[in-house]
Amino acid sequence: MHRASFFVGARRFLERMRIQSGNNKRLNCNLLSQNFPNYFILFTKKEQDICQIKNHVMLQKEQIADRFRILQDTICHGLELADGQGKFLEDNWLRPEGGGGRSRVLEGAVIEKGGVMFSAVHGPLPEQIAKSMHLPPTDFFATGVSIVLHPHSPMAPIIHMNVRYFETGTGRWWFGGGIDLTPHYVVPDDALFFHEQLKSVCDRYHPAFYRDFKHHADDYFFLKHRQETRGVGGIFFDYLDDKCGVSQEKLFEFAVAVGETFAPTYTELLRRAQDRPWGEPEKRWQMLRRGRYVEFNLVWDRGTKFGLETNGRVESILMSMPPTAQWAYNLKPADGSPEAETLNWLRKGVDWV
Amino acid sequence: MHRASFFVGARRFLERMRIQSGNNKRLNCNLLSQNFPNYFILFTKKEQDICQIKNHVMLQKEQIADRFRILQDTICHGLELADGQGKFLEDNWLRPEGGGGRSRVLEGAVIEKGGVMFSAVHGPLPEQIAKSMHLPPTDFFATGVSIVLHPHSPMAPIIHMNVRYFETGTGRWWFGGGIDLTPHYVVPDDALFFHEQLKSVCDRYHPAFYRDFKHHADDYFFLKHRQETRGVGGIFFDYLDDKCGVSQEKLFEFAVAVGETFAPTYTELLRRAQDRPWGEPEKRWQMLRRGRYVEFNLVWDRGTKFGLETNGRVESILMSMPPTAQWAYNLKPADGSPEAETLNWLRKGVDWV
Repeated sequence: MHRASFFVGARRFLERMRIQSGNNKRLNCNLLSQNFPNYFILFTKKEQDICQIKNHVMLQKEQIADRFRILQDTICHGLELADGQGKFLEDNWLRPEGGGGRSRVLEGAVIEKGGVMFSAVHGPLPEQIAKSMHLPPTDFFATGVSIVLHPHSPMAPIIHMNVRYFETGTGRWWFGGGIDLTPHYVVPDDALFFHEQLKSVCDRYHPAFYRDFKHHADDYFFLKHRQETRGVGGIFFDYLDDKCGVSQEKLFEFAVAVGETFAPTYTELLRRAQDRPWGEPEKRWQMLRRGRYVEFNLVWDRGTKFGLETNGRVESILMSMPPTAQWAYNLKPADGSPEAETLNWLRKGVDWV
Repeated sequence: MHRASFFVGARRFLERMRIQSGNNKRLNCNLLSQNFPNYFILFTKKEQDICQIKNHVMLQKEQIADRFRILQDTICHGLELADGQGKFLEDNWLRPEGGGGRSRVLEGAVIEKGGVMFSAVHGPLPEQIAKSMHLPPTDFFATGVSIVLHPHSPMAPIIHMNVRYFETGTGRWWFGGGIDLTPHYVVPDDALFFHEQLKSVCDRYHPAFYRDFKHHADDYFFLKHRQETRGVGGIFFDYLDDKCGVSQEKLFEFAVAVGETFAPTYTELLRRAQDRPWGEPEKRWQMLRRGRYVEFNLVWDRGTKFGLETNGRVESILMSMPPTAQWAYNLKPADGSPEAETLNWLRKGVDWV
């Protein structure tokens, strides 16, 4: 935006705020500081005080971003402990249009390739999203933590987690995210344990969350061209706002709680896998399953597709790629083999819990 | 289509044909036999004779499919000679909606994974294509040969070729296809040789073909998210019909000529690469470049996307996948290294010839 029109915009906001009152005042105050952070000074001292008091009550996007940044720290610490050897390397980046991120990547003894990414970005809302949401041209703010871990052992699962908060200049906001598990070999007991952890987090916030979000995950993490799920599912939610009957504060708590359950849950899954023996055939199968993971991410994952098509930061978007993947023509595991059994589990609607 | 309305449609076609004459008669006759093959019997004996004589003049889709099937044979034979050891395994398949294919896959001494696929399929035109072409619901027929070869040596290039013929029930037809080369390490002399071969084929049919199709290839084989071309390009053409001033018969010849230049050209490129030494670092680079090949095919290639979204035969569509691929986070080759030099060549608009 041009500097002069930015200034005029901020003044108009301020004027509108001045002639309104009560809740609207808080809203405008909030929108002004979000949209024109450098023009906060346009407020009178008294207005600034009101604004700060009011903002203390309503969630601020910076507050959410800060909490997500701490979540990234906690998770990285937990994963380093679980790995026992690898240390995360950090990489800070700025987005030309606004904001930036803190990418952390680990190559460890247990986790072959892991990425734990934090970002908080803002700027004009890409036209495609604005259109798909029936919004006029506006600004957006998005912050989140996104994780994919590929273990060395084919007997341990790939795991993915993402929690994010999104807000537009028109005042709309929502949370999104989820966790899903992709075992190379499905172990029903592990899938049960995993889903129990997720259900227990969900149940603390809404009795329908687990059922609904588990269902969404089944639908979302699905390779339509293979007619198979990516793994044993998990939970997935998007556009989650207070229309579900849970306040913004509580939804924020929920998103953080999903994030906090990640490291302990995966640590337990790694512990269970550590003594399972494997050899060349299992390694080969792992490579082929990683090929499927690539197919899902590049062909079906909305976030990846959107990011690549709208000039996102490629290295962050593609940190989900496995270190190595393989493809074979028309491979069919022998009936009754552990590989065939795994394929039998890769379907929607399995009630693990 | 319901049987009764099919019958009425065929009768109307026949009536229209009867009140028209000359070229139109031939056209309708052709359209009738394409659209309503089981109703050929509706013609009088004399009309059937005219039809068969006329059709002998005009290209028949079966004739094109037969020629492409022979092309597949010739190419497979040439590639087995070039490999010196590997033999193609054949796999025939039927498409539930109509038609089928003959897939051939080779795992050789020089070619690590190669697929040479022939198919001839027909049925109702998928809604998405009909819409994108502003066509009413109609039938289609498509036949083609499609190839991707991944060599063992990182010093030899990946190559892709495709020639195809497409026809709709509304009477539209066109040829499409192309060849493009993806060296793991760009060797300018090889790129020059490759483009010379393509230019020489193109020049036999139209003075603008090479220039136009080379330009299309630069635009098409482009990883927008990486801002790099897939390789050193080649030629790419689509929706090529007689509006370009070349007859259907000559365009068919052109498509076959493109196909026939494939095996000798790649054989020469393999010969040139055979004595180039390589070790672990080159192998690693090859794996990363194969990762880019996967990204192009799954994110940008229209054929792959279309096939996967419209329930195509997955194993044929994904035969283009490399046997193994790798991804690394934020890898930047050292300035002046052969890898960095290769990246410098991966841009649009290089005039190789």
